[in-house]
Amino acid sequence: MAVMKTRAAKPQRRGNAFDLSEKQLRSRRNSKWSSYGPNVLPAFVAEMDFLVADPIQKAILRSVETGDYGYPVRNGTKAERTVADAFSARMEGRFGWKADPALVQVIGDLVQGTFAAIMAFSEPGDGVILQVPCYPPFRETIVTTQRKLIALTMRDNGRRHIYDLAELEGQIDDRTRVLILCNPQNPTGRVFGRDELAALAAFAQKHDLVVISDEIHSDLIYDGRKHIPFASLSREAAARTVTITSATKSFNIPGLRCGVMHFGALELRDRFAKRIPTRLLGSGNAMGIDATVAAWTQSDAWLDKVMAHLTNARDLLVETVHKELPDIRCHAPEGTYLAWLDCGKLRLNTPAFQFFHDHARVAFSPGENFDPACPQFVRFNFATSLPLIEQILERVVGAVKSPERLESLSYAAK
Amino acid sequence: MAVMKTRAAKPQRRGNAFDLSEKQLRSRRNSKWSSYGPNVLPAFVAEMDFLVADPIQKAILRSVETGDYGYPVRNGTKAERTVADAFSARMEGRFGWKADPALVQVIGDLVQGTFAAIMAFSEPGDGVILQVPCYPPFRETIVTTQRKLIALTMRDNGRRHIYDLAELEGQIDDRTRVLILCNPQNPTGRVFGRDELAALAAFAQKHDLVVISDEIHSDLIYDGRKHIPFASLSREAAARTVTITSATKSFNIPGLRCGVMHFGALELRDRFAKRIPTRLLGSGNAMGIDATVAAWTQSDAWLDKVMAHLTNARDLLVETVHKELPDIRCHAPEGTYLAWLDCGKLRLNTPAFQFFHDHARVAFSPGENFDPACPQFVRFNFATSLPLIEQILERVVGAVKSPERLESLSYAAK
Repeated sequence: MAVMKTRAAKPQRRGNAFDLSEKQLRSRRNSKWSSYGPNVLPAFVAEMDFLVADPIQKAILRSVETGDYGYPVRNGTKAERTVADAFSARMEGRFGWKADPALVQVIGDLVQGTFAAIMAFSEPGDGVILQVPCYPPFRETIVTTQRKLIALTMRDNGRRHIYDLAELEGQIDDRTRVLILCNPQNPTGRVFGRDELAALAAFAQKHDLVVISDEIHSDLIYDGRKHIPFASLSREAAARTVTITSATKSFNIPGLRCGVMHFGALELRDRFAKRIPTRLLGSGNAMGIDATVAAWTQSDAWLDKVMAHLTNARDLLVETVHKELPDIRCHAPEGTYLAWLDCGKLRLNTPAFQFFHDHARVAFSPGENFDPACPQFVRFNFATSLPLIEQILERVVGAVKSPERLESLSYAAK
Repeated sequence: MAVMKTRAAKPQRRGNAFDLSEKQLRSRRNSKWSSYGPNVLPAFVAEMDFLVADPIQKAILRSVETGDYGYPVRNGTKAERTVADAFSARMEGRFGWKADPALVQVIGDLVQGTFAAIMAFSEPGDGVILQVPCYPPFRETIVTTQRKLIALTMRDNGRRHIYDLAELEGQIDDRTRVLILCNPQNPTGRVFGRDELAALAAFAQKHDLVVISDEIHSDLIYDGRKHIPFASLSREAAARTVTITSATKSFNIPGLRCGVMHFGALELRDRFAKRIPTRLLGSGNAMGIDATVAAWTQSDAWLDKVMAHLTNARDLLVETVHKELPDIRCHAPEGTYLAWLDCGKLRLNTPAFQFFHDHARVAFSPGENFDPACPQFVRFNFATSLPLIEQILERVVGAVKSPERLESLSYAAK
C-alpha cells in the first residue's frame, strides 16, 4: 500500500489585515477580484478585502490538518446545533434578544432562506412588500416565485432614507402575505430605530403579515447606534418573524455558505416545515459551520478592529464626496460597508455604473440592480484599504471633473 | 492597526492512508467515530477511515492558505460551473455517457436532491416506487412529503439480490409518478446489469415515470464489473431521468456537502425549475466545490488504491463470514463498501444490531433502518483498515459462538 503524502498549509501571509495590496487582492479567486479586468478597481459585491479572524482560520485548520471531512459531529451532537447555540448566545449577548436555538434552521445562504420563507408563507399571485431600493435577489425571489411585488420606497428626506407606511395602504389587499425587512438596509445603510420598527410591527399585525427580517449586516453599525432585532420587539412580533442572518457578511466568509433562519414561534416553524421540509434545504457543511461558530463566539476583537477601520473608511469616503463631488448626494451610512451614491445631478448620459466603469475604471454595483428607477445611483463597497479607497475616489473625481465631461455637459446645456 | 497573526496548518500525519490506527480515528470529529463509546468499534455510517487524496487536500489548502473565503469564482466563472464540467467529463471518461454540463444543478447532498426531485415531479398522495431495503433517507423523503411508498423488493436468489418488476403490476396506478433507483444498490451492494436496467427503463416508459437515479457509489465497483448510468441507456430513458451523485462517497468528503443533480433533457430541467427554483437549494460552498473538482479530475490514482484495499477488505470479510459464521448469510457485494448480513438463522431474540452492539461491542447499521421487515439484518461498512476489520470480525465471531448464546439457543430449542 502506498504511503500517502499530504500537503501541509503554508502560513498565511502576515501583515495588516486591512491593508492588503492590490496585488495580493488580485491573486484572490473571489467574485470581487475576478469579475473585471486588471485596470478596473472593484467596489461592488459585498465582500471585504480583509484577512479573516484568526479563530476562524484556526477552526478551519483543525479539520484540514487531519483531513477530517466526514459528517461533522461537534460536542457530541450534529454540528448544526453548535451554529444554533452560537447564534442564540450571540443574539442575547449583543442585542438582549432571547432566540430559541431549537427554532433555528441552518441554511446555506440568505437568498435560499428568503426563497424558502416566501414559498412557505405565500402562494403565487400573493403580495410581498419589499423596501425599494433593495438587495437584488429579493426582487428576483418575488419574481421567480410569481408573487406580486409591493414597493415600500426608501425616500431621501435630506438626511437619510425613510419609508412611509401610508404608501402601502392603497396597494395592499387580503392577498398580501409577507413583508421583507432588510435591517440594516442594503443599499441605503439605514439602521432603523425602535419607532420605525414598532410602526412596521403594528402594520404587520394589522394585516397579518409574516415578516422576513434580513439582519445580515447587524454587526456593522456606526456611531454608537444599536441594532434592534425585529423579533425582539414583542412576543407578537416574534410570532410572525423569520429572522435570517449569518456570519458570512461581518466575518467575510461568504464562500463557506452557512446561515440561519430563526422562527419566532414554534407554530411559525411548523407552518414552514409543512411546506418546506428541512432536508430540502440541504445540510450544513463542516467548514461553514466551524467558521461560523468561531466567528460568533471568538472573533469580536477582530470585529472591533474591522469596525474601527470601516469607520475611517466611511468617513474618508463621505468627506471626500461632500468636498470634491458636490453633485453626488451621499449620506453617511448608519450601518453596512456600503454607500449609496445618488449621481442624478451629474446629468450623465449613461447609467452611473457604466460611466464610472468606462471613465474611472471603477466597478461599483449598478443602481438599477437595486431599483429599476435608479440607474443614476451606484452602490460603493468601501470594505477595503484606505489607499484603495483613495485611489477609487481619485479616479471618480477625475472622471467627474474631466474636461471632456464638463464640455459635453456645457454642450448639452446649450 | 494591529498586525494579524494567521495560523498555518501543521502537516497532516503521513503514513499508510488505509491503516490509520484506532487511536487516530477516535480523534476524528466525524459521525462514525463520535457516535459510540470508546469500547465500541463503529462499522455503520458510510464514511471511510482513510486519508483523502492529496489533490483534494491541495485544492482545499489553496483557499485556506490565503484566507480566500469569498464568493468563489474559478476559471473566470461561477465555481459551480467547474463542478458541472468535471462531472460531465468524468461521466464521459469513465462510463462513455455524454452528460450535458448545462443541465447540472449543484446541490449540497443527495438527500436534498431526492426531496427536490420528488417534490418537483409528484404531488402528495402520488406513488413513488422504491427498492427495499433501501438507504433510510429515501423512505424518509417519501413519508415526509406524504407520497405513497410502493416497494420493489430486493430478494435474495441464493447468489445475489434481484427485483421482479411483476411485483409492481398490482400496486401501481395512474398516480404513480416516480421511481427511485439506487445503483449500485445500498445496502445490498448490487451493481445492476444492462438487462436489469433496460427492463426498468421500459417499465418507466410504459408508466411514464420520472426516474431518480442515485449513482453515488458508481466509482466503487469490484471484479471488473461496469457501472451503467441509467441516463446512458437511451435518449428516451435520459429524458425522464434525474441522476444524483457526488464525489463525497468515493472520495470521503461527505462533510463538505457538494453533489450534483443532472437532468437528462432540457424539458425535464424546466419542469423541475418551475417547482423548485434553483436558489431554493442554496449555492455551492467553495471548499466542497474545489474538493469535488479535485476528486473528479485528479484523484483516480488514489481511488485505484482505495479499490485495491477495499477488494482485500471485502474478501477478508466475506471469506471469514462464510468460514466462521455459516449462519450469517452474506453475498460479496458487487459494489459499495457495504455488506448486507442476513443474521436470521442466528435466531437472535433482539434485533441483530442490538445483539452485536451489546455482545460484540460493534456498531453496525441496523437492518430495520433499511426495511422495517429486516431487524435480523445489519449493514457492515468495511471501509477501514484490515486490522480493524479483523478485530470487528473476531468480536462478532466471539459473540455468535459464545457459550451463553449457544446455551440460550439450545434452551430455546427444547
